[in-house]
This record gives sequence, structure tokens and C-alpha cells, in this order.
Amino acid sequence: MKVILLINCPDQAGIISSVTQFLHSRNGNIVYLDQHVDKSSNVFFMRLESEFDTENFNTSTFKKIFDDVLAQPYQMHWSLHLDGLKPKMALFVSKYKHCIYDILGRHNAGELAVDIPFILSNHPDLRFIADQFNIPFYHLPFSKENSAEAEDRQLALLSEHKIDFIVLARYMQIVSSRLIAIYPNKIINIHHSFLPAFAGAKPYHAAFKRGVKIIGATSHYVTSELDEGPIIEQDVTTVSHLHSIPDFIGKGMDLEKIVLSRAIKLHILRKTMVYNNKTIIFS
Amino acid sequence: MKVILLINCPDQAGIISSVTQFLHSRNGNIVYLDQHVDKSSNVFFMRLESEFDTENFNTSTFKKIFDDVLAQPYQMHWSLHLDGLKPKMALFVSKYKHCIYDILGRHNAGELAVDIPFILSNHPDLRFIADQFNIPFYHLPFSKENSAEAEDRQLALLSEHKIDFIVLARYMQIVSSRLIAIYPNKIINIHHSFLPAFAGAKPYHAAFKRGVKIIGATSHYVTSELDEGPIIEQDVTTVSHLHSIPDFIGKGMDLEKIVLSRAIKLHILRKTMVYNNKTIIFS
Amino acid sequence: MKVILLINCPDQAGIISSVTQFLHSRNGNIVYLDQHVDKSSNVFFMRLESEFDTENFNTSTFKKIFDDVLAQPYQMHWSLHLDGLKPKMALFVSKYKHCIYDILGRHNAGELAVDIPFILSNHPDLRFIADQFNIPFYHLPFSKENSAEAEDRQLALLSEHKIDFIVLARYMQIVSSRLIAIYPNKIINIHHSFLPAFAGAKPYHAAFKRGVKIIGATSHYVTSELDEGPIIEQDVTTVSHLHSIPDFIGKGMDLEKIVLSRAIKLHILRKTMVYNNKTIIFS
Amino acid sequence: MKVILLINCPDQAGIISSVTQFLHSRNGNIVYLDQHVDKSSNVFFMRLESEFDTENFNTSTFKKIFDDVLAQPYQMHWSLHLDGLKPKMALFVSKYKHCIYDILGRHNAGELAVDIPFILSNHPDLRFIADQFNIPFYHLPFSKENSAEAEDRQLALLSEHKIDFIVLARYMQIVSSRLIAIYPNKIINIHHSFLPAFAGAKPYHAAFKRGVKIIGATSHYVTSELDEGPIIEQDVTTVSHLHSIPDFIGKGMDLEKIVLSRAIKLHILRKTMVYNNKTIIFS
Repeated sequence: MKVILLINCPDQAGIISSVTQFLHSRNGNIVYLDQHVDKSSNVFFMRLESEFDTENFNTSTFKKIFDDVLAQPYQMHWSLHLDGLKPKMALFVSKYKHCIYDILGRHNAGELAVDIPFILSNHPDLRFIADQFNIPFYHLPFSKENSAEAEDRQLALLSEHKIDFIVLARYMQIVSSRLIAIYPNKIINIHHSFLPAFAGAKPYHAAFKRGVKIIGATSHYVTSELDEGPIIEQDVTTVSHLHSIPDFIGKGMDLEKIVLSRAIKLHILRKTMVYNNKTIIFS
Repeated sequence: MKVILLINCPDQAGIISSVTQFLHSRNGNIVYLDQHVDKSSNVFFMRLESEFDTENFNTSTFKKIFDDVLAQPYQMHWSLHLDGLKPKMALFVSKYKHCIYDILGRHNAGELAVDIPFILSNHPDLRFIADQFNIPFYHLPFSKENSAEAEDRQLALLSEHKIDFIVLARYMQIVSSRLIAIYPNKIINIHHSFLPAFAGAKPYHAAFKRGVKIIGATSHYVTSELDEGPIIEQDVTTVSHLHSIPDFIGKGMDLEKIVLSRAIKLHILRKTMVYNNKTIIFS
Repeated sequence: MKVILLINCPDQAGIISSVTQFLHSRNGNIVYLDQHVDKSSNVFFMRLESEFDTENFNTSTFKKIFDDVLAQPYQMHWSLHLDGLKPKMALFVSKYKHCIYDILGRHNAGELAVDIPFILSNHPDLRFIADQFNIPFYHLPFSKENSAEAEDRQLALLSEHKIDFIVLARYMQIVSSRLIAIYPNKIINIHHSFLPAFAGAKPYHAAFKRGVKIIGATSHYVTSELDEGPIIEQDVTTVSHLHSIPDFIGKGMDLEKIVLSRAIKLHILRKTMVYNNKTIIFS
Repeated sequence: MKVILLINCPDQAGIISSVTQFLHSRNGNIVYLDQHVDKSSNVFFMRLESEFDTENFNTSTFKKIFDDVLAQPYQMHWSLHLDGLKPKMALFVSKYKHCIYDILGRHNAGELAVDIPFILSNHPDLRFIADQFNIPFYHLPFSKENSAEAEDRQLALLSEHKIDFIVLARYMQIVSSRLIAIYPNKIINIHHSFLPAFAGAKPYHAAFKRGVKIIGATSHYVTSELDEGPIIEQDVTTVSHLHSIPDFIGKGMDLEKIVLSRAIKLHILRKTMVYNNKTIIFS
């Protein structure tokens, strides 16, 4: 079986040696190691993949000993993931079809190793797509009057289905601070601009007005500051005076799809780690 | 001989037909035509290249008749350029070596069809490069006390050498409104970020802090609003958590060079037209 | 109504003027013109969009007069298309899911202005996707024994549904020369390499073996020479020693989808013209 | 002082642990580690940077012990490099000015941490550039008659100046097998195409003829098979029907410069390792 370890701690001599020694001594075969030191904050980051003989590996025992022997002395923040366990992903959408089709098409094509227990939307429009792919669809409208209640319902659904992370696939509704607090660095948004340029509403209109020659899309973890969360992935494409605002939107949709799906894959593969509102993206 | 026409005017039926008819009737052979209509402002733009028999072509006569027959009736803004005439370009630099070396290397390699009568700097550091390439170098420092005087000297130099356009190759000094007024859409700057992200000073530091995954460079015509002029060219490159601020700066220098040289070439070839603080870049 | 004209002919003086004059005199308002001269073969290419008052425009009359007045004298190859008429597109697939999902998702999202009367496959595997999107699916296996018969059936289906063009969305069967002859420059293929590198089978394996740092995908019109048809669109992505063959395939699938959909859009918008086994892609 | 270790060996359990343990026990502080396992050949690759207290570090002692304790038991191919020692680079050129100007400009701007003891050319044309940058220039023409003699002279120059590696900056002369044998994986070439497409002569002409939409450049180590050596770096740019062969060449020159300079930097930083005619490029 393959075990993924994600670690960060204050940088200090001997960490790599200690961790690899620990794994080796417990018959783990390290098949991948990527590490990074952030010099400005003096923090060490590491991602390891180790293979263990399934019969002799007990997850809770391993965690206990790792914590005692390494995590405590080195003041590590760390997590352990068993490769092959599919996380549960909730998909939040509104009215745009491109991202939901892209994600569900990829899921059905076997590209995304997740379960999608349900799709949630503040609008009823995309129910037919959920139906096409046989996934439960919850229409949960938000208004000033019902917002607390809607939030409760939202959180209940997430908890009931044991959701691991949430994807906002052009979900046009600001998510609540309660939700963000419960799913820190576990809500992935796609913003339709090359952040920090054109944060906020109508970025394609703003980009058109400014006359930029390149537009972009940005996937980031959601934090309480709108469009300010840690960036996971960005990509861009060229535009010119020949392109109208609808052209910007059309070209942008292709970017949004590809950037969001890359971010989802990185998250699923446990290749992301957040520190100081920035991401480490392991190789 | 080849004549380049740049035209813009209110959009209306029959312009292309009238202009091409006019050229054809005067024995001009149209070898290139690119046109564009900005639907939002209802403005028509066109760039033509026509070949004429040199013996029968008189520039001032042509201009006079073109103005009477076409420009006046269609309310055109237009200009005529004789292909093959090398414009005179002034190069303003400060302390960075990468852009000046790139431009002078390209110039000597025959890539840039301009004359460079002089290099001007507010610092003495790069004189040795001007010397390497045998180009006069003027050290013209600016201070609070001497700014009016320095400006006069600057303008005198430009005028004396009949400069057509100015390139700010990482020139670290805000150019005066007088200079901008005299050279409208004729001062090309390179900004070391993907504008409008990270306008102002220290963009690489700001990009690093924000944790972006892509950095860029932007070449634009200088207007009185700092970093807000019409964008000519942009390009980007990927960065990651592995890159420090010096890495951003190093990768960015390559972008700055390439983006600035592309903008200079577009300007020399008369492929740019400015309208509403945006550029039309003809094919 | 909007009329699109595609023209090529031997280059000669006065063409643009004659054509624009012709349209103007018949009350057509030219809203777009892009032209190009291939200097090496001395051929002129043009694409125009003109708006006409629907009441006064008769397509067959227009065609007749255009032919007499312009096409004959200038020896033009030309075609006229009414904007807004949806072409009929047949989709040929085999076993790969990524392209079919991408195309059908885009179609349902309103991105592709075509009708898709049916999906044809030499394998039964993807019937469920056709069912999801409510599109008739024909399973038409090819073997050495039945190939003539299968070909007949294929051509009959295409003819019966008045198919305008065919998209091979990773269709793993060589198309017959009869089919190619009937649909010249109307069969769009996606090849999973940056042609002409790695033509033929297993390009990702070949790319991996060669140790390239960039892989690509190529969409082209199908001709009788395998993987040698005129290229419509290409794109690339970076790879490194970190990527295995399955990684190449995974990254490549994203390229294939995007490159194929761009080629389909260009074809639908009548922005492509083929000459000398190369494409002109109008702006 | 900083020490760089480059290692490859048959993959086996415990290598990372043993090497990091070894360095830690000798008071080395590991500031960087990147490793990779090539699954298809079962080979392990690693690059480490370790800081040592200069007073207590003796290079030859360290090498001896490392060899005994680790290299022998693990059957390693390895090398040790002291960070900060500038390698000596010979520059071979012919007639093209863009690469030589780019490299010398970068060198003078402080971007390339190398010494350039001389420039060698089979043509006299670029002597003036060497003069501009005050670098000795040797004109060493090759002909059928003098080739053995010229080769001897070439090798003598390289040996005399203790050259570490050679850069062929559009050097239009096939290098001899003797030279390749003496400098294995130490001769860097730039080929003006996206290899393996358009190997051999006149790649831009071939790309133009094929009608590709993207052109590229490739930097690789020179082996006895022409244009078949391990690829270090590639990059591409878009072209269209608008571009003539001279345009391809012009756009390509920008690629060649950037791709070659990136390859040189990777080589200088000891970030490349060659195996099975492919490169590992460490992060």
C-alpha cells in the first residue's frame, strides 16, 4: 500500500535524514520525495510517498509513533493519506454549463479519482445536466431572508455526505464564513481572471476595457477575503483588438475549465500545501 | 516604392471600397490590407500597403488629393509612411543592462530598422555599453533642483536629433508631461509586470508575496497616467514556490527583453494604432 | 442577413477594389474583410462578411451575377455561406471518452453552432455517452471481410443525413479513400502529436522515448496521405523527466480536446481555406 | 561552502536515507534535495546541495569517503561540484549574430557565471563582435584538406584553456567524433526546430512547406548521431499563413536565443544529468 505524507515545520538541520531514516527503519520504501525550504519564512516543506507491506502496516499505530518520534520534536504540521482512497467532492454550480460539463465528463472518463455525492446550486437551471450524469441535484436558493437557514441546510448536506472538499464551478454566490471555517483550504474556486488583476465582478469586461493582450483564469482556495485566497493554478491565453467581450468570455471559458480541473487534480493527489496564504505545489 | 496608410474614422458603408478604388485608380497595387471595426465605439480602422511606380508617385501630391477626396469626407485620422525610411529612436536607460544589451545586439544584428542617434541616462553606469556599440551617451541626472533644466536639455537633444520615438528600456525616472505631450503614443515603456496587476514599484516583490503562478511583462505607450497607457504587447512565464524574488527578477528580465523588442518592432513597422487608450495591432 | 464569401484566385491588381465595389454597389455593407497573398505561389485569398437587407437579397441571383462579373474574369475559386445556417456534423469515435465528452458538453453548452445527427463508431463502448446526450449512435464495425459493405453503409448514413462535415474524435480506423474523395477538406482529424513529429501510431510512446520537453496535438483535414493533411490547429504543453507515458497521455488528452474543438469552431465559422496542402486561417 | 552532489544508481531501498544520513553525520546541512526514479529503467537520480563549514571540509577526503561508504556499495555514478567555481566555456560560432550577441550580452550583464576564454569560428565574420566584448577570437576554417589539422588545433585550444564545456551558438560545421568523445554531454547545441520534427538542414523552410502552426527550437547535448542527442530544453512560438520563411527565421531566432541561454544556465548550475539519451532536469 502507498502512504502519502505531507509535512511542514520550522527549517532545521537533519529533518530529511530523520524522516527518511524513520521510514526506512519501518520497512517503508520511499518512492517519491519532494522538499522545499521557504527561505523568507524559514519553513521546511516535504511530500513523501512510501510503499509498505499492507499486512504489517497499521495506520493508527504508524501515526502515533510518527507523532511521538518526529512530529513533536520537529514541531511539524503534517497529514497522512492512504493512496487509493477516493475523496468525496461536492460540486457547487449556478448557471454556467462549461465547468460542470467539463468536470462530469472528466469524471466519467475516469480522469478524476473522486466520488461526487451531489451537486448543489442556487439556481435550478443545471438540474438536467446532473440528471444526464445521474448525480443527485439540490436546488438551494439563497436570499436575504433565508440565508441562515440555507446555510444550515448546506452544511447539513455536506456533513451528511461526509464531503472532503468542495469545488465552486462558477458558483455565483459568496460562500459563508462558517463554511470557510469548516473547510479551510478545502474549497476550490475558479476566478475568471488572471488574479490579482481584475478581482471582483465582470473581469472580462474590465480586461476588455483596459485593452490587455492576454487574459487568464485563476483557481484558488477560498478564504474570507474575496479573490484573495492562496492560488493553486493559473493559465492565460492571448487576445487582441479583434476580440469582443463575448470572445473574451468564450476564450476564457476554455481557460476556466482547464485551470479548475488541474487544481482539482492537484488537490486530489495531495500535491498542495498552504502556508502564508500561498501554495506549495509538489512535483 | 511601398506606401503604408494608417486610417481611422467613424464607421460607415463604402469606406473599403472607396479607399481601394482610389488606390487602384492611381495605379497603386494593394499588397496588404487589414481592417477592423470597433463595434463598441463604431470606429473603423485600416492599414494598407500599396506599391507605386516611384517615378510617378509624388508624396505631397498624393497626400493632398487623398485628403480632399477621402480624408475630409470620411472624417479620417490618417497618416502615410514611406516604407524603408528608418525612424530615429532615442534610447533612455538607467542601470539595468539586459534591455539595452538586447536592443543594441538586435540593432547590430540587423533586426531593428532604426537609427539610434544617442542613448540618454540619468545614471552614468551604462556608458561603457554605449561605448561598446559606438553610440553617443548623454548622462543627464535629474534632481528636484535641476528638473526643469534637465527637461529642457532632454527636449533639446530629442529635437536636435529629430527623434521620431523614444524607448524607455527600464528607464527609472518618471517622464515629464511636457515630453509626453510632444511625443504622444511615441514613447514606449516596458513595465515589469502583467499589467494591470502590480502597477507601480517593485512588481516582482508584490507578485512573490501574492503567490502568483505566472508573471509577466507589459510594453505600453506612455501617457500621463503612470502604467495606464495603451498596451502594445504582453507576455508571461510560469513561476512556482521554488522561485525566490531574485528568480522572479531573472525570469522577468527575459520577458522584458522580448516584450519590449516586439513592441519596438510593431512600432517601427507602423502596425500600431491607438484609440480610446487601447491599441489596434495590425497583422 | 449576413453573407460570408471565401475567395481565392491568382493574385492580380484590383481584386479587392473590384470585389468591395461590387458588394457596395449591391447595397452590401462589408463588416469584415481579411485578405492574404501567398507570395510563393502568387495566390490571393479573401474572406468577407457582408450584411444585406434580407428582402432584397436573392442568393441564387447573387451567385449568378458574382460568378459572371467577378469569379470568371478573375478565375476565382469561391464559396458563399449564409451566416446562421447550422452545418450538419457527423461524429466518428472509437473508445476514447475525452473528446466525445468535450464535444457534446460544448454542444449542449451552446458553444458549437452545428447539428449532430448521429455518432458513428467501430466499437460499441461509447454508446452510453451518445445515450446520455440523446444522439443516435450507430455501431459500424470494420473487418477485412466487411470493409466494402461497411463503407457503403457509412456513406449511406452520411448522405441520408445530409452531413456537411465529419469529425474524427480519436476514431481509430483509417478512413477510406472514397470517403475522403466525397468530403474533401471536410473531414477533421485530431492527431495526438505535434505533427510532423511522431506521425503514425503510439506518438506518446515515441515522444517519451525521445525525451522531448514539449508534447503537442494537431488537428488537420484528412487527405489520402496519413497524418499529412493540411494542419488547422496545433497546441503544445510542457513535459519533463517526471512524466511517465500515462502522464504524457493524460496531459495530451487535454490538448487533443482543446485543439480539436478549436479546429471545429474555425471550420463552422468558415474561417479556413485550403491551398497547396496548407490552411489559410482567417482572423 | 556549498557542495553539489549529482548521483545516479540502480534503484533500491534506503538510498535517500543513507545519503542524507551520511551528509548529516558529517555536519552537512542539506539545503536542497531533488530525486527521481525512472521506473522504466529502474534507475534512481538525485541532486543535493549541502552547506559545510569551510574550515572542516576537505574535498578530496570527502570524495574518498563518499566513494567508499556510498558510491561503491550502491554502484553510483556521481560527481561533486563546488558551488561558486566558474566553469570555462568555449563559444563556437559561424555567421549568425543573434546567439553570440545574446550570450555575450547576458554574460556582461552578470547572468552567466562562466568564464569565456575564447570564441572560435570557421568564418571570420563575427570577429568584430568578439572585439566589442574583448574576447579572443580564433578563426579556424575547415576544409576537406585541412580537417585533421584543424581538429588538432581546435582540441589544442580547448585543452590549453582548460575548457569545461562548449556551446555551439549556431556553429554551422559538424563537430568531429573525437571532440564529442572528449566532451561527452559537454557540448551544447541549439537546433532551429522543434526536434524531432525537421532535423537536418533548413528546418524553417521545411516547417513553412508543411504548414505547421507552431515552430520551435531545441537545445541538446551533441552526440555522434546528428540532431539526436539528449534534449535539454525546447520552446515554441505560434506562426500562421501570414508568416513567410524570413518571418519564421526571425521568430525562430528569438526562440533559439532563449532556449540556448536556458540550456547553458541549467548546465552551469549542474541541474542536468544524462541517462539513456535523455536528460533529467533537476528543479
